[in-house]
Amino acid sequence: LRAREIGFDLVYVYAAHGLSLALDFLSSRTNQRCDEYGGSLENRARLLRELIEETKDAVGDSCAVAVRLAVDEVAGERGITSEREGREVVEMLAELPDLWDVNVGGTEHDSPTARFAEEGHHESYVSFVKKVTTKPVVGVGWFTSPDTMVGQIRRGVLDLIGAARPGIADPFLPRKIEEGRQDDIRECIACNICLASEYIVAPLRCTQNPTVGEEWRRGWHPEHIPARGSDSSVLVVGAGPAGLEAARALGQRGYKVTLAEAGRELGGRVSRECRLPGMASYARVRDWRVAQISRMTNVEVFRESRLTADDVLAFGADHVVFATGARWRADGVGRSNFEPIANDGSLIMLTPDDVLDGCAVEGPVVIFDDDGYYMAVAIAERLRAEGHAVSLACPEGRAASWMGHTAELRPMNRRLLEAGVNILPNRTLVAIRNASVDLACIFTEAVEPMPARTVVSVTMRREEAGVYDCLRGDPDGLVASGIQTIRLIGDCWAPGIIAEAVHSGHRYARELDAADPGDLPYRVEHTVLDGHAA
Amino acid sequence: LRAREIGFDLVYVYAAHGLSLALDFLSSRTNQRCDEYGGSLENRARLLRELIEETKDAVGDSCAVAVRLAVDEVAGERGITSEREGREVVEMLAELPDLWDVNVGGTEHDSPTARFAEEGHHESYVSFVKKVTTKPVVGVGWFTSPDTMVGQIRRGVLDLIGAARPGIADPFLPRKIEEGRQDDIRECIACNICLASEYIVAPLRCTQNPTVGEEWRRGWHPEHIPARGSDSSVLVVGAGPAGLEAARALGQRGYKVTLAEAGRELGGRVSRECRLPGMASYARVRDWRVAQISRMTNVEVFRESRLTADDVLAFGADHVVFATGARWRADGVGRSNFEPIANDGSLIMLTPDDVLDGCAVEGPVVIFDDDGYYMAVAIAERLRAEGHAVSLACPEGRAASWMGHTAELRPMNRRLLEAGVNILPNRTLVAIRNASVDLACIFTEAVEPMPARTVVSVTMRREEAGVYDCLRGDPDGLVASGIQTIRLIGDCWAPGIIAEAVHSGHRYARELDAADPGDLPYRVEHTVLDGHAA
Repeated sequence: LRAREIGFDLVYVYAAHGLSLALDFLSSRTNQRCDEYGGSLENRARLLRELIEETKDAVGDSCAVAVRLAVDEVAGERGITSEREGREVVEMLAELPDLWDVNVGGTEHDSPTARFAEEGHHESYVSFVKKVTTKPVVGVGWFTSPDTMVGQIRRGVLDLIGAARPGIADPFLPRKIEEGRQDDIRECIACNICLASEYIVAPLRCTQNPTVGEEWRRGWHPEHIPARGSDSSVLVVGAGPAGLEAARALGQRGYKVTLAEAGRELGGRVSRECRLPGMASYARVRDWRVAQISRMTNVEVFRESRLTADDVLAFGADHVVFATGARWRADGVGRSNFEPIANDGSLIMLTPDDVLDGCAVEGPVVIFDDDGYYMAVAIAERLRAEGHAVSLACPEGRAASWMGHTAELRPMNRRLLEAGVNILPNRTLVAIRNASVDLACIFTEAVEPMPARTVVSVTMRREEAGVYDCLRGDPDGLVASGIQTIRLIGDCWAPGIIAEAVHSGHRYARELDAADPGDLPYRVEHTVLDGHAA
Repeated sequence: LRAREIGFDLVYVYAAHGLSLALDFLSSRTNQRCDEYGGSLENRARLLRELIEETKDAVGDSCAVAVRLAVDEVAGERGITSEREGREVVEMLAELPDLWDVNVGGTEHDSPTARFAEEGHHESYVSFVKKVTTKPVVGVGWFTSPDTMVGQIRRGVLDLIGAARPGIADPFLPRKIEEGRQDDIRECIACNICLASEYIVAPLRCTQNPTVGEEWRRGWHPEHIPARGSDSSVLVVGAGPAGLEAARALGQRGYKVTLAEAGRELGGRVSRECRLPGMASYARVRDWRVAQISRMTNVEVFRESRLTADDVLAFGADHVVFATGARWRADGVGRSNFEPIANDGSLIMLTPDDVLDGCAVEGPVVIFDDDGYYMAVAIAERLRAEGHAVSLACPEGRAASWMGHTAELRPMNRRLLEAGVNILPNRTLVAIRNASVDLACIFTEAVEPMPARTVVSVTMRREEAGVYDCLRGDPDGLVASGIQTIRLIGDCWAPGIIAEAVHSGHRYARELDAADPGDLPYRVEHTVLDGHAA
């Protein structure tokens, strides 16, 4: 009633995601009642039916009443499955709601990352629904390609396409399809950084869309950006996520931009990391930006152009921005060790950069994961697939503990264990000696040597900002060359997730020639309840 | 400057707890600088010195400037130790601050629970400070007993007693000492539920003081309570934490109270649990309430008085409140298993209640901890101390994962491992058969049998509310007996932590004969920054 009062057209009855009482009643996994709400499926569906009926009674004259239902809990035979009770309950309530919104399981199955699912992966679970109801059906499943969407509509799987994560990555996705601008769609990579933002109680971030969460605080529109504030030229050094986004957004503003990349390939870390198992979608971070830039006449891209400080001074742009990235440390320093570990050189010691560069690996391999996100486990997966004996030690109680925030922790640990990776939790790397990796229990500090041939140390990254540091030390040279500002963005400013690098590049472009907004506090709506003023 | 402007008299420079830049500069563990802020202790202390000097320059004319310093990081030889650099830095800056506030290490060492430290446990670290400065010295260390406080003052350890947790448990602690009312002090049990409230981003709770965090929202004063709203009599059934607190607070309001306890001993679960290793302080929850009640002429206590529904009807109080607690389930149902596990009876299967009741245990023992707080690990510690071979399996990656919120996770795991308890993380109990405990990997679901003689299943508790249920089913009987209301409080209403039971009992007493306040939202102060209105 309140929703209608403030203008909503659609009211949902929710029975999905393992977080709804209606689903708890529906599933015999959780419903052990002996009254008329337990036992048979009809009884277990009674609460859901009554919720729909009462919602229709309350607002059905002016609002559509939708039902979101997990038609398969992906929880084994005792749970709701789309072959049996999931189908039966939709048949039972087929014409009752005005809209069926169907999905599967908890978050891990509903919104898996690209590492664990393909686009449109709900199809096999939900395709029965349109066969048993005449009501419109909407579904989700990481839809980013218009072809896939059209395919599901044409084949009668869905009537309406649902897209939460793809809509975060590109809020103008529907508009771009409508206008035939498919190539402009900034496709979601299904990394679940958006979900992680929620889980860690941080402002929303997206690897592809730096404006998300900044619409109100900073006034950033996902498509529009103010025209340039001057006729300045800008040299962007480095074509990783931060440099590409800076060059693209500066180009969109109308600046004369030169993008210089040291290597032959654009994309920086995403081009390297997207070759790791399960990370192919990360290439989209590069591909969308490269495609956008390629259509801009005011942005010039130079590959294989590693610049020295003298080169930068000689080039003489008005503004120079460095996006030269970061490199993984090779000395073991990170969260667990504040100082370099003892290392007698008896093992091949590699960093993730070495592995990505193709350095030779000899098994057995011990990977020390002091980082906790995807790098160590992706390397473990690759090296195991190459046939090496792989152990993964980590100070947390589970491998890739940060993946708890991206709904990947369980499937990732399962994948590693099933591949035969030996996970050694609650341990830190303390030394490399006598052809062994010395691992210490984080609780007792008891040390155990782990024989190996190669150790991959995934601890922390260090900024690569040498040219910038040189130029900062040469203020006279900067003045003589006419360079007005030099800046660092992305990982060479502060190593972080890719989303932060893209955000950093975008922010640089937005704020060039604009008044410094300073440190803006996040803006929050404060709800004041009647009679309980804060 | 802002602090002075709004009326503060004391401004702190903070170099403690591992969360201060000044301490990071001070410690050679973390300071690896090569400039005048790194290297020698004098250099590493430069930032702290400058912070103190600049703070004094800014507000020293009207505010005292205090320094909080961790004089020992309890982090081994590379960290600050009170024998060496901790002492040296105090000597170096001895007369600079107006007040020295000295403590140790991070939270785990600064505010350990009673399981890991004694009252006044900072003394050996901080006792040097008064020898090297003429400025007043304040310290902390779980001070609850006036004798200990006076002892430290008399022996010249401290000039001022700091007490955060004891002040949460009893905000009137200083007043009670001043007035010679030592017996009225509600002593902190050092359980760190207060700290956990902060870590889980929940409103502050205290096991001893139910009014904390409710002063504003509910208007609860820790010492005062409104006089009774009628001449009603109240029967409180059960003398655990909820029943004792209800009887005490009802007595304070002036009601005629009868407290009936089934057993010989008062205290319910705290009397049982306080006998587990490290939990002696929990008896204070009982002892303070029993002592308060013993002085009330309007509260009568009956032990060994198990009441049936007929007894309650015959007693004929105006209000009856049940605080009959909960019992641990014996069927394996809990977070991991929604249905009873398969059990062929080939092992001795015990619940925590059985262990607390003294049931015979034969090793080897497997404890399945589906709960994650103190019960399973305290039982593991006891049974190991009794000489049994003990394994502890848990679905989390570490034993007692909830102790991460009470700063006990690391010392608890260390204690168990050093005692020889075999911790089996990331596993659930799936069956008991063939004289083995079947444990499944939570990721792969692969099952491994673990031979044992006894299994202790620590999963969840079930409300004990049989008499209440009988009475609810007999409305005519209630009317005939003149009983106006019956209610459940504490664990028989909803099994939870002890703090919630005490809160529940207190709330019942506060709200008897008062208008129902309904569900009150928490009240929050919203700060509006200049120029950035929310």
